[in-house]
Amino acid sequence: MIVVLAGGVGAARFLEGLVCVFPQKDITIIGNVADDTEIYGLHISPDLDIVAYTLAGLVDPAKGWGFRADTFECQNLLRKYGFETWFKIGDKDLATHIYRTEQLRHGRKLSEATDDFSRRLGLQVRLLPATDDAIQTHLLTEKGWMHFQEYMVKRKTTPRVYQVVFRGAISARPVKGVIESIANASGIIVAPSNPIVSIGAMLAVPRIRSALQETKGKVVAVSPIIGGKTVKGPADKLMKASGVRPTAVGVAELYRDFLDTLILDRVDKDLAPHIAELGIKPVVTDTLMRTNRAKVRLAKIALGELKH
Amino acid sequence: MIVVLAGGVGAARFLEGLVCVFPQKDITIIGNVADDTEIYGLHISPDLDIVAYTLAGLVDPAKGWGFRADTFECQNLLRKYGFETWFKIGDKDLATHIYRTEQLRHGRKLSEATDDFSRRLGLQVRLLPATDDAIQTHLLTEKGWMHFQEYMVKRKTTPRVYQVVFRGAISARPVKGVIESIANASGIIVAPSNPIVSIGAMLAVPRIRSALQETKGKVVAVSPIIGGKTVKGPADKLMKASGVRPTAVGVAELYRDFLDTLILDRVDKDLAPHIAELGIKPVVTDTLMRTNRAKVRLAKIALGELKH
Repeated sequence: MIVVLAGGVGAARFLEGLVCVFPQKDITIIGNVADDTEIYGLHISPDLDIVAYTLAGLVDPAKGWGFRADTFECQNLLRKYGFETWFKIGDKDLATHIYRTEQLRHGRKLSEATDDFSRRLGLQVRLLPATDDAIQTHLLTEKGWMHFQEYMVKRKTTPRVYQVVFRGAISARPVKGVIESIANASGIIVAPSNPIVSIGAMLAVPRIRSALQETKGKVVAVSPIIGGKTVKGPADKLMKASGVRPTAVGVAELYRDFLDTLILDRVDKDLAPHIAELGIKPVVTDTLMRTNRAKVRLAKIALGELKH
Repeated sequence: MIVVLAGGVGAARFLEGLVCVFPQKDITIIGNVADDTEIYGLHISPDLDIVAYTLAGLVDPAKGWGFRADTFECQNLLRKYGFETWFKIGDKDLATHIYRTEQLRHGRKLSEATDDFSRRLGLQVRLLPATDDAIQTHLLTEKGWMHFQEYMVKRKTTPRVYQVVFRGAISARPVKGVIESIANASGIIVAPSNPIVSIGAMLAVPRIRSALQETKGKVVAVSPIIGGKTVKGPADKLMKASGVRPTAVGVAELYRDFLDTLILDRVDKDLAPHIAELGIKPVVTDTLMRTNRAKVRLAKIALGELKH
């Protein structure tokens, strides 16, 4: 059994390759919920949805989120009714949010709703939210405090960020199975996700970081930073805001206390010695996941490192 | 200023004709909310929606409810997620329900939400729910008690009905403007709607019936029963269940205490003397509203009777 710590699009693409070469039923995915938000009274878990839609083969391949060929009839009318529509919700996507909200309203936990939802989409992986408790990423920017989704989607990551906080993290409890699966995993892969707001938000949930430090399984991460930039999302900007260099070395520093191996891109090969200096094994390869073949190749390299 | 008491599809079709020959801004529509229900956590007011969509020119003309050419992407996926989908909700329709639910959740009254919603759809009529309080039509049937929508939509009006109750009606208060508009109207038209569950549910709200009895304006109704049957819906069955003959005479009996004129169909012309015996003026004409011309013609006749 292996564990993957997963954010959104980058993680989902990595997982697409992984499930081609490793049995779904032997994978536990721990997903980020600090980007969760409520829109139109509906609970939305963007990262869990991205992972589930992708593994179910239903995701919009161009955007990396939402359903393929989804329509926006409902939201187009909501705009006429005076609602903000910067957070795009397709008609099918809405069904997921209604489903999840109804489950929560009837007293089920987010983890129970997520398990049921992923089964209904035909997944065999175990998809666990990091926590059932409310934890929310808020950013202090030059425009004031804002929810991560406002920064990311509404403001397209343009305001300068001074600080990142995970409200509620300090008192959040890991979902049952999270600590156990990390402790008992034959290996753990930290997907190429934002090390601050995706992986970092999960590490802020008490006991998750220490479980990673203590597990006997190898911990392998894939750097989401290539040549000082992210493929998608604001990881580089938020690393800077957190006082970390936006490079593979910065990623290694953030994971230093539990990481065995960091897979980094060929363009960053000169950084390998600096990573080795931190006591982390650098593995240099192509990390861009443009094709299925590239995804599978990267997954195989990560799996290979778990065994060393 | 005139007032129209309105249920769903029959009333909406009548109103379509009326607004062709009478200024919208001088019409107050009092709408039925006892059919309201909650589905997927969303507050749905079917009769208000039918009236608003119809007057906005957006209604599906074949069904008489929902938006023209609406899609069902969201609900199709909700079915896969295990939800019941016998109450059809199109993707655009969903926007209305989300809008209304959000308004209510933020502490606005149903009447405020309805006013805002009808303005956003471009209506100039004043559309008032009969009450802001929760009132719900429940039926005792051979299959037990059920909400009106379950009887009407899920079970397609097949179970035999023994009793009709309007839960909550006894303590409901009319929306501000309802009593005043009836009292001050130059005339009141009772639309060709179900006299038990549409009009009857409004008459069950304290003070509405007495306002109709006391108003100086003429009260004219259009019989929804033609040849002992309803054009649409279960009015005939529910009249029987309430111990009333399912005929224009039965309609006259139900409205006897406040009605001046009853417009009935030519096929029922033999009933005219019985209606006159009740002290109500019978007006015999074609009441089927198959074409716009027929709708306008019927509206003109009703308006003419208000003046006599």
